[in-house]
Amino acid sequence: MATQNLTHEMRALAQRARAAAQGMSRAGTAAKNQALLRAAELLEQERAALLAANAQDLEAAQAAGTTGAKLERLRLTDRVLADLAAGLRQLAAQPDPVGEISEMRRLENGLLVGRMRVPLGVIGMIYESRPNVTIEAGALTLKAGNAVILRGGSEAFRSNTALAGLLRQALREAGLPEDAVQLVPTPDRAAVLELLKLDEWIDLMIPRGGEGLIRFVTEHARMPVLKHYKGVCHVYVDRDADLEMARRIVLNAKTQRPGVCNALETLLVDQAVAADFLPQVARDLEAAGVELRGCPETRAVLPEARPATEADWAAEYLDLILAVRVVRDMEAALEHIARYGSNHTEAIVTQNHARAMRFLREVDASLVLVNASTRFNDGFQLGLGAEIGISTSKLHAYGPMGVRELTTTKFVALGDGQVRG
Amino acid sequence: MATQNLTHEMRALAQRARAAAQGMSRAGTAAKNQALLRAAELLEQERAALLAANAQDLEAAQAAGTTGAKLERLRLTDRVLADLAAGLRQLAAQPDPVGEISEMRRLENGLLVGRMRVPLGVIGMIYESRPNVTIEAGALTLKAGNAVILRGGSEAFRSNTALAGLLRQALREAGLPEDAVQLVPTPDRAAVLELLKLDEWIDLMIPRGGEGLIRFVTEHARMPVLKHYKGVCHVYVDRDADLEMARRIVLNAKTQRPGVCNALETLLVDQAVAADFLPQVARDLEAAGVELRGCPETRAVLPEARPATEADWAAEYLDLILAVRVVRDMEAALEHIARYGSNHTEAIVTQNHARAMRFLREVDASLVLVNASTRFNDGFQLGLGAEIGISTSKLHAYGPMGVRELTTTKFVALGDGQVRG
Repeated sequence: MATQNLTHEMRALAQRARAAAQGMSRAGTAAKNQALLRAAELLEQERAALLAANAQDLEAAQAAGTTGAKLERLRLTDRVLADLAAGLRQLAAQPDPVGEISEMRRLENGLLVGRMRVPLGVIGMIYESRPNVTIEAGALTLKAGNAVILRGGSEAFRSNTALAGLLRQALREAGLPEDAVQLVPTPDRAAVLELLKLDEWIDLMIPRGGEGLIRFVTEHARMPVLKHYKGVCHVYVDRDADLEMARRIVLNAKTQRPGVCNALETLLVDQAVAADFLPQVARDLEAAGVELRGCPETRAVLPEARPATEADWAAEYLDLILAVRVVRDMEAALEHIARYGSNHTEAIVTQNHARAMRFLREVDASLVLVNASTRFNDGFQLGLGAEIGISTSKLHAYGPMGVRELTTTKFVALGDGQVRG
Repeated sequence: MATQNLTHEMRALAQRARAAAQGMSRAGTAAKNQALLRAAELLEQERAALLAANAQDLEAAQAAGTTGAKLERLRLTDRVLADLAAGLRQLAAQPDPVGEISEMRRLENGLLVGRMRVPLGVIGMIYESRPNVTIEAGALTLKAGNAVILRGGSEAFRSNTALAGLLRQALREAGLPEDAVQLVPTPDRAAVLELLKLDEWIDLMIPRGGEGLIRFVTEHARMPVLKHYKGVCHVYVDRDADLEMARRIVLNAKTQRPGVCNALETLLVDQAVAADFLPQVARDLEAAGVELRGCPETRAVLPEARPATEADWAAEYLDLILAVRVVRDMEAALEHIARYGSNHTEAIVTQNHARAMRFLREVDASLVLVNASTRFNDGFQLGLGAEIGISTSKLHAYGPMGVRELTTTKFVALGDGQVRG
């Protein structure tokens, strides 16, 4: 009976989202931007209430034994709210992709054919912990003219409810359907399973969080899913690398923010420069507190490194640990990446043009870099504006997903009576 | 035990496809085009053998009681083979989308960021009856640098085996991996179910055929599926239509090839012009042998029309039958289309600019036309070159899918030592 109620409740919620999506798809840019700017204002005006709701979540989490980084991810602060408001204002200032017509051309029969950018429809967002995502995902889907169903972690339920309520108020005040942003009104986990069945009303599911959550969503969703499981990112230091540049890139990629998906996990070094390069970079890394795990050739140069096992080559540490492997040449680096990489972010450091171009062409990853840090795989850093996540699925979006990736194009044709002969 | 063997066989086949896809992704345009041109030659040289294999399929089908249109779809003729060869030569002459870099721009930190077009990987194609699809789908996936696993109807098994063998020979002679085209080597239906589980090696599944086949694939596939279930296409004749133009468009959309997905199924007529327009168009349609099924307002003007039931508004007849409904105004037409349409192809006939633009913007379909026949929803007609199918899924591709829709883009970034601050 409880399950029947939940089934019924989730279907009603998805149908409301579908109706709101129709309204949103016809909304003008001005109204959508007005809602974003009003939401930014409300984040400032309602700061006390938002922090109070968050304090309740924090207390409950602490009472349940949550500590450290996990507790910190849950925390809203004046700074976090100010950053979210600034993000909303930036998003309002970005161009609206909806309605843009591209590739318009006249066919021989006089028919004008092009592609018009339109919203995707209803997007489901399933995420863990950080309540920021409620605002970021709600705002991006709103700007792209979609409706969103948000399902955050149960530990952030009060914070998410307050933040989603604020977006709904902003939509309402801008004359837009408030059901374009809905939060699943129960922390019950069974609700997620119900949502994943509703492919009739939900066009796309985006899970963000740990690999377990993402595999669960992928396995059970009947609608398309855009996601990445993990980021096992490599930097390959070529024999023709500028070794000073390579040191800076490796140090940045590993230590600037080790807990995120675009951080470096395995360093590959051409054997021709291993003896020169490894002691230099090891000094930097060890000074930054990074533990090294190396192949035998690495350990011949750096005896202090722990021996790496097969599991290290596939590991996403998300921590101050780095696997290091000396490779015969770029061919061997490409093979290593093809075998152990996660199609997320891969970088080469080299001054050799031919090898740079070959690496760029042949490596299958959502972002391939030459002479830059893996940490740039991020919608904002790549100039897309805010992002709703990074996709390593190849269909529809491969890489960071911004507003444009939350739309699609339909064909449009303008004729003056053309028929087919 | 038989199922275990099949599981094993399908996994081995998919793994061979994955390995071939890696080779294909690195293949140059010249080698791919050489394979296409060689396949065109072989279609001509091997005509006798191909027709003999097809004759065996035709005999078996006749012995099993197949007749009429279904039998004809199975038939290869000199004309069909010549058309296929011409198609291959056209495809060879088309630009190669792989490697194209677009949207390259320099960010503030000097990083050059763009998107590089790359193949999708391994594509599964599950289709019925027409053996032409073996060549068309094989050639398109080849041109886009992918590997394909083909599973045609069991009634065309000998024809498909001969045609796929020819593509494999052409690949081999061009120095490309022949496993880039593989035909499932058994007509056993259980093989399809096995393939649909292999999301680790197959990136995309494209089913083409009846609604039953497509629902089966969508329900069981663990990888993304691009498809359309059906085409319930409308023409809306507005009060400001050029009625002569509307007659030509309706007649063409309904009768030029009634058995295909972009044929007209329901005619919507603004009440202001119904009394003028319906008798004119009915004369044309009745002369072409079309049976009319109308709403009460239609039958007030055309008493010879059969009464339409609710089922008629949702019907994809694929036959010389047309449902006709008189609507209050464009608003009512938009509502009808939103309710009964299949997101496939929708057309308005009007001289009114504002209503044309509103219809274009608000109708949610893979192709929306103003003053032209629905029959144009076809990759070749819209100038994409050959197509592998039409998608009404909104993710990745919405509308006809040509070579470009069988690719994706990855991000590429060229730096000179950029790190993240």
